[in-house]
Amino acid sequence: MTNTVSIREVAPRDGLQNEEPIPTDNKVRLIDALSRTGVRRIEAVSFVHPRAIPQMADADEVWARSWHNPDVRYSALIPNTRGAERAIRAGFKEIEVVVSASDTHNRRNLNRSTEESLDDITGLIPLIHEAGAKLEVIVATSFGCPFEGDIDPKRVASIVERVRADGADRIAFGDTTGMATPRRVRDLLSEVRPDLLHFHNTRGTGLANVLTALDLGITEFDASVGGIGGCPYAPGASGNIATEEVVHMLEDMGIDTGIDLEELIRVAELAEGLLGRTLPSGVLRAGPRARLV
Amino acid sequence: MTNTVSIREVAPRDGLQNEEPIPTDNKVRLIDALSRTGVRRIEAVSFVHPRAIPQMADADEVWARSWHNPDVRYSALIPNTRGAERAIRAGFKEIEVVVSASDTHNRRNLNRSTEESLDDITGLIPLIHEAGAKLEVIVATSFGCPFEGDIDPKRVASIVERVRADGADRIAFGDTTGMATPRRVRDLLSEVRPDLLHFHNTRGTGLANVLTALDLGITEFDASVGGIGGCPYAPGASGNIATEEVVHMLEDMGIDTGIDLEELIRVAELAEGLLGRTLPSGVLRAGPRARLV
Repeated sequence: MTNTVSIREVAPRDGLQNEEPIPTDNKVRLIDALSRTGVRRIEAVSFVHPRAIPQMADADEVWARSWHNPDVRYSALIPNTRGAERAIRAGFKEIEVVVSASDTHNRRNLNRSTEESLDDITGLIPLIHEAGAKLEVIVATSFGCPFEGDIDPKRVASIVERVRADGADRIAFGDTTGMATPRRVRDLLSEVRPDLLHFHNTRGTGLANVLTALDLGITEFDASVGGIGGCPYAPGASGNIATEEVVHMLEDMGIDTGIDLEELIRVAELAEGLLGRTLPSGVLRAGPRARLV
Repeated sequence: MTNTVSIREVAPRDGLQNEEPIPTDNKVRLIDALSRTGVRRIEAVSFVHPRAIPQMADADEVWARSWHNPDVRYSALIPNTRGAERAIRAGFKEIEVVVSASDTHNRRNLNRSTEESLDDITGLIPLIHEAGAKLEVIVATSFGCPFEGDIDPKRVASIVERVRADGADRIAFGDTTGMATPRRVRDLLSEVRPDLLHFHNTRGTGLANVLTALDLGITEFDASVGGIGGCPYAPGASGNIATEEVVHMLEDMGIDTGIDLEELIRVAELAEGLLGRTLPSGVLRAGPRARLV
């Protein structure tokens, strides 16, 4: 098994996008605090229309005011050409775009078919490459769709094949509503392998999924400090895996993430204050196993 | 990997013992509802002094009034000879006793050393066998102690060796305060193997631990419907793994538990009503992955 794992901290974007909006100052505080934990990658903002996602309406200002730690790689999510132009203008070199493996989910989420989104991505890639940036394609509902149910791994594989042929630099699989299980992780990864996995803990299998993926050689994971990212129990449940729970398990296995776990737990405590709600993280509540009475 | 797993449902005893006391009627309702789910084993009550554990003061009445489904094996926990006599009188054929691998934890929990508890167990075994019952020894803090920290697997192994030599019928390892991780499960089980594992989800690793143990050939697990068993975030945190989360993951892997998952989720809903608090179970909140929008 690997000795190191690369975690991308997604609380500032994916996390906050699924919470009640918080002030710009608090977003900056969260990014800056995360930048001090030793984490090597942070998904900082998304450049979306403020009417679609009011939580990210201040993305330009958040990014301009955040500390850009030279040891951290920051990324931004974009939905379209306009978003890509904003991300490039803001100086991002790592950009992400989402397409859903489920046509129904893609239509509900992006108001177009999966095929139409793939055509959009074909057009985005040269634009992003010309700016010297890289594009990661996140394939949402890779482990199942809340409308369609199971997604055939061959469908995910054909999407990956297409976007790789178009020049996409990286591929991530998103477990959009927490339908991944150890069995589904094995099924999908035996068909097609991503660069990175994004799991939710909606049904309790978050760390079991990470463990399964590690066993299959995956070494990059998204996670969200405190498990920020919407009440895991709301309809269309979110529930990102909590970064400190992932780091706690990995560290115990002798796998290095670069992250200082105690510092990360302090950021989770800060995040609870900023969001004003109890976050769903056991390691935040109970502390690491090494913390004795 | 195995095709079947045997789950012992521990909510009526271990679960309720770590919650605010509820009326006798509600305990009977919970046991009876669980007896209809297809689960094959239920830890029903403990015969302890009512001053030590007021939650179990009505154990005799609860058991007398509960449905004894002939397809379910029911067990009782006892702390000493007096408890064993009560359990035998009540007709139990499966009896459990706890000893802690950590001397400090054993003293705090049972007011005597691990060695003294082992001597007590030596005396209990013939009494229980003469009554035609079997004794399971649960080794608490097997994966770590909140006072002492890591527990040497060799210490757990020596306790197992001793109680097996004394005639104990079965061995369980208890993850008393949620210190088990996949790594610790591998470390301990490579030294000594139990018949059954009892995990908590205090730090998010509950199902990852189950997965690891399955991989090592263990096929018996304790679990508690709804994750009943104390606020997982209280000091001395409890936080049993939720039976429906375990069954959900196993069923998806093609592993049979005999349990009807939808029926079990209805019992978890009932349990929330009986306890009057939101229980920490993702599958209770979000439903199985197959439940579409």
